[in-house]
Amino acid sequence: VENRIRNWWGWGFEDSKIPDAEIKQLGSLLAERLGSELTFINEPDISDLKLREPRIKLPERLAQIARTDARERALHSFGRSFQDICRILGGSFERPVDAVIYPQDYDDITKVMEYCDQNKIALIPFGGGSSVVGGVNSFEVNEESYKAILAVDLTNLNKVLDIDLTSRSALIQGGALGPILENQLKDHGLTLRHFPQSFECSSLGGWLATRSGGHFATLYTHIDDLVESIAVITPSGYSRSFRLPGSGAGPSFDRLWLGSEGAFGIITEAWMRIFNRPKFRASLEAYFSDFNQAINASREIAQSGLYPSNARLLDPVEALVNGLGDGMKSVLLIGFESHDHELNIWLNRAREIVESHKAELKAFEVKSDSEKIMADSTSKWRSSFIRMPYLRDALVRLGLIVETFETSITWDKFPELHKEITACVKKILADDFGQKGWISCRFTHVYPDGPAPYYSVLTVGKLDPLSRITQWQEIKSAVSDILIKLGATITHHHAVGRDHIKWYEKQVARGYDEVLKNVKKTYDPNCVMNPGVLIR
Amino acid sequence: VENRIRNWWGWGFEDSKIPDAEIKQLGSLLAERLGSELTFINEPDISDLKLREPRIKLPERLAQIARTDARERALHSFGRSFQDICRILGGSFERPVDAVIYPQDYDDITKVMEYCDQNKIALIPFGGGSSVVGGVNSFEVNEESYKAILAVDLTNLNKVLDIDLTSRSALIQGGALGPILENQLKDHGLTLRHFPQSFECSSLGGWLATRSGGHFATLYTHIDDLVESIAVITPSGYSRSFRLPGSGAGPSFDRLWLGSEGAFGIITEAWMRIFNRPKFRASLEAYFSDFNQAINASREIAQSGLYPSNARLLDPVEALVNGLGDGMKSVLLIGFESHDHELNIWLNRAREIVESHKAELKAFEVKSDSEKIMADSTSKWRSSFIRMPYLRDALVRLGLIVETFETSITWDKFPELHKEITACVKKILADDFGQKGWISCRFTHVYPDGPAPYYSVLTVGKLDPLSRITQWQEIKSAVSDILIKLGATITHHHAVGRDHIKWYEKQVARGYDEVLKNVKKTYDPNCVMNPGVLIR
Repeated sequence: VENRIRNWWGWGFEDSKIPDAEIKQLGSLLAERLGSELTFINEPDISDLKLREPRIKLPERLAQIARTDARERALHSFGRSFQDICRILGGSFERPVDAVIYPQDYDDITKVMEYCDQNKIALIPFGGGSSVVGGVNSFEVNEESYKAILAVDLTNLNKVLDIDLTSRSALIQGGALGPILENQLKDHGLTLRHFPQSFECSSLGGWLATRSGGHFATLYTHIDDLVESIAVITPSGYSRSFRLPGSGAGPSFDRLWLGSEGAFGIITEAWMRIFNRPKFRASLEAYFSDFNQAINASREIAQSGLYPSNARLLDPVEALVNGLGDGMKSVLLIGFESHDHELNIWLNRAREIVESHKAELKAFEVKSDSEKIMADSTSKWRSSFIRMPYLRDALVRLGLIVETFETSITWDKFPELHKEITACVKKILADDFGQKGWISCRFTHVYPDGPAPYYSVLTVGKLDPLSRITQWQEIKSAVSDILIKLGATITHHHAVGRDHIKWYEKQVARGYDEVLKNVKKTYDPNCVMNPGVLIR
Repeated sequence: VENRIRNWWGWGFEDSKIPDAEIKQLGSLLAERLGSELTFINEPDISDLKLREPRIKLPERLAQIARTDARERALHSFGRSFQDICRILGGSFERPVDAVIYPQDYDDITKVMEYCDQNKIALIPFGGGSSVVGGVNSFEVNEESYKAILAVDLTNLNKVLDIDLTSRSALIQGGALGPILENQLKDHGLTLRHFPQSFECSSLGGWLATRSGGHFATLYTHIDDLVESIAVITPSGYSRSFRLPGSGAGPSFDRLWLGSEGAFGIITEAWMRIFNRPKFRASLEAYFSDFNQAINASREIAQSGLYPSNARLLDPVEALVNGLGDGMKSVLLIGFESHDHELNIWLNRAREIVESHKAELKAFEVKSDSEKIMADSTSKWRSSFIRMPYLRDALVRLGLIVETFETSITWDKFPELHKEITACVKKILADDFGQKGWISCRFTHVYPDGPAPYYSVLTVGKLDPLSRITQWQEIKSAVSDILIKLGATITHHHAVGRDHIKWYEKQVARGYDEVLKNVKKTYDPNCVMNPGVLIR
């Protein structure tokens, strides 16, 4: 895992990119479906890349752990949203980071922070760089306010430092990417079991800073719920909370850092609650002719107290894309996992519930072999879920607009939200773009009081990738307005970053913007930490 | 419920006080056990009460909703800790609140807050007044800084304003006491099921402000986890969060108010997640000869993923006091509840786990009758759990020191903590007080990564109630030092208040005290809100 080479311009790793031939094949297929000719954009060539010279000369101590070659600087100047990929394919490399710093220890972090703080240099914390909300985008940093911009890549701080088997928890460094931390836990029969789609290219610190949503569809959905203690380094110094299973002592320090998005400091370590690797698994696929019945079944499952590990509702288009059904039925995937007990009873009750909502069952299975379960779930999930963003890059190269947005809302308001959003997107596709296209919906998480719906949009865009950004922004802006109007959150687990800030400011409780600004003043008095994220 | 008369000097309601005759009987019994003569202090007489005159004349608007009689002022000048009861029995009525304001609506809250803000008058928010940490104690407010002190009693703002049956949530006013809000939910087949020991005399707003711990021993232990949205009034204005089942949009506003203890403003309303009333229940009592085996069983249950509603471990003394066993065995009480499914399988697996730790089973039962379950649990629990603080008052009148403290810590560190704490208390009882006495322990909540231990101390104290305060403070101070030394929290669910602040300051993460002070500046720039609580 540690030796894989990152793709400098797109999602993930070089070894997992979809080959050109396969992309062209996909293009022919899609062109037919969409009734439109598709383009084919070549992969950008690193040797064509011309970045402006670094604007600063680093002091010796930092120069030793810095990289300033074009590949490193380009890789660290963007996140990996649809818009970011379009920018890169469109050759828009304004305001790249001036250097990338790779701290080898916490002292390095302190040193680079002091340097930035004293010299008014913007510091962008960089974990896996998988932000889809502009969380690490250097070109959005205000040029006039900062002498330079540094990305601080934390991936060398990637160790599981301590494991407490009795309390089932682990002390993990913030820079550890998903596979790297899981590999270290595996030897002890343990797993953090936090599997966002960005798993390969996102770090524990990044998950915490962005309130990442993981594999569990109920109960421990957000990384927030797995935290015992957080340690941080800020321009004002070092800080950490007591390591506790629960507390009622004042407003939670940890919760302030969950969602801090690098604007206050860097999360260096956290004690995390972990799980025994599951020995038992039970799952079913329920097919519904009526999306509303599928929603009601999801809701009853979420309110049942059965707490399935997985409970994902896919609308007919999402189901089709995932190889389930014929595009006419919604599918609810339910899975239970346990290291402790067989799950037949749980699954049987879930079956009763979905059948009472007129579902047709197509798979109903119980397994009990530890490593087979982990291997199964890993490989299955790898092949579709993890591959999706690689596919996204391929589709962008074919001239498509392909992006997602996500939210959460209470059950009572979901039908209205869903109706408004799908109508709005379809109208823009038809009237403004004059293109066929799809909007599809799945629930990534379900709570007793509401779902977290996740929408995907796909359509033919303008040939010029930079023009496609403007097209996407029309959709994004319209749906974001609907979210705020109906009281849905601007993000359930993608974070605020720079893309969502306009709507976040409408969502945020009155006066709380002032609170956050004062928090920033306390931890980061010279405003060098990830400027423009979360707080303007 | 609404017409019951509060006891002005002690816990709860007049109608539930333990009669003098019963107290004397209890006294004889205990005197024998403790090998010591016991005193008998008469109930204080309201007609003896002489409070200093109110120091301000309220403006007409506030005078209309104010009470200034001695009974009201005395009732609102203290919480209900052991120390508070001693103070009252000892006749220590310095610095009472100057008046009690009863807002009838939110505008009244704004008006009294403006008045206090403009005139430098301390405002103590008062829900049920059950604080055991000095959270509502007027005598601790710095006299030089404030012209007067007002208690603002919120119990008229006690309505369930809206119920969303689809999303299973309710909008509830902050002043609603436990029984009052449960009565309103009951008609809809619903329950918040948050039953702290103070249930009768504590309010939703108080629970939220103090991060109260409820009936559930696993999963939704703190009220924190049941919040969708919070609305507040502060000296800087009105504020509320979006109502959401989950969110990842920046650091949580709600979490800042959870644990705010009235220092930033008043919680006026909250949308809360609620539950269907349970139809099925299954429970067992497991007896252990070895406390360590009982701990291991509790841990395995907490880590099993079975998520019992109840999982309380009582050490031999606690068990005896609760009428379970002969004082030689520890007892683990496990209960499952559901509105959705029978629980035999859950209970059977729990039985296997406790039996693998050499438990002896004495009760193992499955029930399925909705209202009977609620009635049963209510009445059983009423008779012991709810009665306990009334009994506490009786014991104080007998000259005893009787108080509790609680914490949480990870499983790995619990044995050391328990050893140090019990040794420390026993040493003080024997060496410094020269008395027999007990320290007992139970787990009120169990997490996968650690328990929330709750300690009770009982011994003969000095006759003078005020001297007994000093005695208790010796114990409290010594055990609090141990908690902080070993990294346990100063409070799991009793809050910080004024009693814990010295240790809270040692627990709080570096720089976070500054953050909280700045939050206070933002919401309460003139520092009139509950001064001295949480922040000094």
